[in-house]
Amino acid sequence: MQRIHSTEVSAHQGKRVTVAGWLHSLRRLGGLNFLVIRDGWGSIQAVAETEAELEPLLSEQAGVESVLTVEGLVVDNAQAPGGYELHELSIKVISPVTEAPPVALNKRTIKAGLSTLLDHAVVTNRHPERRAILQLGAGVMAAFRAALLARGYTEVQTPKIVAAATESGANVFRLDYFGRPAYLAQSPQFYKQIMVGVFERVFEVGPVFRAEPSETTRHISEYVSLDVEFGFIESHLTVMALLRDLLAHIFETLGQHYSAQLALLETQLPDVPAEIPSIHFSDAQELIFQRHGVDVRGEPDLSPQDERWLGEWAREEQGSDFLFVVGYPMRKRPFYTHPDPARPAYSNSFDLIFRGTELVTGGQRLHLYADYLAALEAAHLPIEPFETYLEAFRYGMPPHGGFAIGLERLLMQLTGVPNVRLATTFPRDLTRLTP
Amino acid sequence: MQRIHSTEVSAHQGKRVTVAGWLHSLRRLGGLNFLVIRDGWGSIQAVAETEAELEPLLSEQAGVESVLTVEGLVVDNAQAPGGYELHELSIKVISPVTEAPPVALNKRTIKAGLSTLLDHAVVTNRHPERRAILQLGAGVMAAFRAALLARGYTEVQTPKIVAAATESGANVFRLDYFGRPAYLAQSPQFYKQIMVGVFERVFEVGPVFRAEPSETTRHISEYVSLDVEFGFIESHLTVMALLRDLLAHIFETLGQHYSAQLALLETQLPDVPAEIPSIHFSDAQELIFQRHGVDVRGEPDLSPQDERWLGEWAREEQGSDFLFVVGYPMRKRPFYTHPDPARPAYSNSFDLIFRGTELVTGGQRLHLYADYLAALEAAHLPIEPFETYLEAFRYGMPPHGGFAIGLERLLMQLTGVPNVRLATTFPRDLTRLTP
Repeated sequence: MQRIHSTEVSAHQGKRVTVAGWLHSLRRLGGLNFLVIRDGWGSIQAVAETEAELEPLLSEQAGVESVLTVEGLVVDNAQAPGGYELHELSIKVISPVTEAPPVALNKRTIKAGLSTLLDHAVVTNRHPERRAILQLGAGVMAAFRAALLARGYTEVQTPKIVAAATESGANVFRLDYFGRPAYLAQSPQFYKQIMVGVFERVFEVGPVFRAEPSETTRHISEYVSLDVEFGFIESHLTVMALLRDLLAHIFETLGQHYSAQLALLETQLPDVPAEIPSIHFSDAQELIFQRHGVDVRGEPDLSPQDERWLGEWAREEQGSDFLFVVGYPMRKRPFYTHPDPARPAYSNSFDLIFRGTELVTGGQRLHLYADYLAALEAAHLPIEPFETYLEAFRYGMPPHGGFAIGLERLLMQLTGVPNVRLATTFPRDLTRLTP
Repeated sequence: MQRIHSTEVSAHQGKRVTVAGWLHSLRRLGGLNFLVIRDGWGSIQAVAETEAELEPLLSEQAGVESVLTVEGLVVDNAQAPGGYELHELSIKVISPVTEAPPVALNKRTIKAGLSTLLDHAVVTNRHPERRAILQLGAGVMAAFRAALLARGYTEVQTPKIVAAATESGANVFRLDYFGRPAYLAQSPQFYKQIMVGVFERVFEVGPVFRAEPSETTRHISEYVSLDVEFGFIESHLTVMALLRDLLAHIFETLGQHYSAQLALLETQLPDVPAEIPSIHFSDAQELIFQRHGVDVRGEPDLSPQDERWLGEWAREEQGSDFLFVVGYPMRKRPFYTHPDPARPAYSNSFDLIFRGTELVTGGQRLHLYADYLAALEAAHLPIEPFETYLEAFRYGMPPHGGFAIGLERLLMQLTGVPNVRLATTFPRDLTRLTP
């Protein structure tokens, strides 16, 4: 008999069907035995009223997480989760499991310390809560791509092994490349800019690598970066407008197609305002001084505390989970950053703060070759390591800009998990290299 | 005036429009000056009948690859490429280029030696032929994903920094991971199998790394792997059926949405037969002996020459560009390979040969924990480095299998370029680490 998915059972009331999946739980209550079968789509309850029906499990001592097929009659029952269950079972054990898993997967909430959860991620990722977070991640990637493909963007896949550290020499993994030193790309920044010269509008979804030397709840050493770069912009404002539309599309898609996961995680999707409020860096510092009496004016960057305060202000005074901070000082931004023509000490760049934490960094880049030569000189950087990158500008580049969204950071802030590792399939950090 | 794309000009006959892009070519014929403007979508001819119109170019000595906006009147002209051109021009130079590019980009075919082409890939990727190949690559990725998402697959992004070499210790890049040794993943094999335990059906598009110690036309050290893995299969035949449907969808999509690129490259799309012909490994060796008198019977693998001969046979006798070879000997396949239950010296694995070269490898994997323990012991491999991988099987895995398609290899064989590097955006090999 053709197998159907757990989520399709309700359409077969009064008929016999076969489902297949993992034995999520088994409760034996007197003469009644309640099985929950979990498959790739959801789960379904099956009720064995006789020992004979359970015999295939018992004879192999097959416990939870055993892989089974269960044939049964579809019966509606308001008491059953989802309103339907299987009766008169014929069970077949495909892969018996005789040991209890290292962490119970069939409690409503997974209960284990962080390191146990991560050490056994191979198994704990099966828990419906963990799985829901990872499914939201897949949804974000799919929505990001769909929105960009619809706007004429071309997907690129750029090299991860590079000859020089992308943006600075710090926090970069060093590699033995056939006896020569090489590095893992910290971002596709240079390559996505170069590819604007080929396709005008590009995006990339791929791993980036940061040798973060400290343990924080917000940093991992390998993460998925959703990168966008495009040409013929007016300024960073063009970039911010695209980012706004993209985020609106992503959250709309999650609301449409991932409502079960959002409900399970009790996650409230943010509203993306038609126009996200925006504040200049220097005004943001002034605001913090006015509201909190802390004088950060003159600091070259915002601290996490500053971002939290600005997030509160956006929430309370602007009614928005999102806030753009624009015009970061040039001296803290990378050399390819485009200055604000009206106030050259400030940049045409932005951070997007989401619920009090930086989620996206982006901006307009320099596009004239002469400007690159001047910027490298001003930054006391040599030209040689950037020679092939500079070729793009030497042979004509339009005004362009872009941004990068950290996938796991987005999932963390969206679902409210307290550590970015819990929004990562198999996290890598200072001490963690497995699983 | 709002900029339009080069491909939209024909819809505005008799009106003034603005296009923007790169000065692809400039021919000055007596009083007439023919400009071709290339943008991210195609190109359009513009005709300047006066020196005054050209003045913005001339005053800045702006040559080919300069970035311009050109406003002009849309005129139909059967002589013009595409049937339309712009007249009465108003040109604005955005980024002037005063040096000739290292390789001419405006010849029908790009003419340069391989190393020049690759050294200057930042610029040569702009050539319409090079760009068309890379666009086909984006099309393959998009079609691959769309087909799998429609079939209920979940996209995963698995770690590229790993604690142990994936499949063998050979050809792996070694990394300094905070003072400890680590490796770059040779494939997502283990992780995609693990994730079948979470989602049942998964795919991944991402970089894989092979420290290939030799220079061939078919190998690069970083490439894009299109990986699929799914559960509840009958055997490798279930996997082959999915692969067949996926390839049919990919080529259908290219035919529908990339006809301009295919025409430019003079690329003929293959027909994917409703059922791809299939031959057992041992019969394939017998066939080679019968047809060519070369006795490869008893060899544990097929050579590139064997694959060419089998490709010819499939073309001539079966009318197919594709041929499955199934049942490779177990002794040459990795330890996780599932044996053929009827002939345990042979495996439930396959290669797909496309136009005489191996394109895809796949098969059914072991799924029982006890079988893994036995397979590792038989292969004289220790258990410890595989401990977290084995956790997936210890706690229940269904019969499963999958395959991996090398994106650049597919593009190479599809377009007929003589070297896989020419189907790669920025190739990495034994000697090449830039651009």
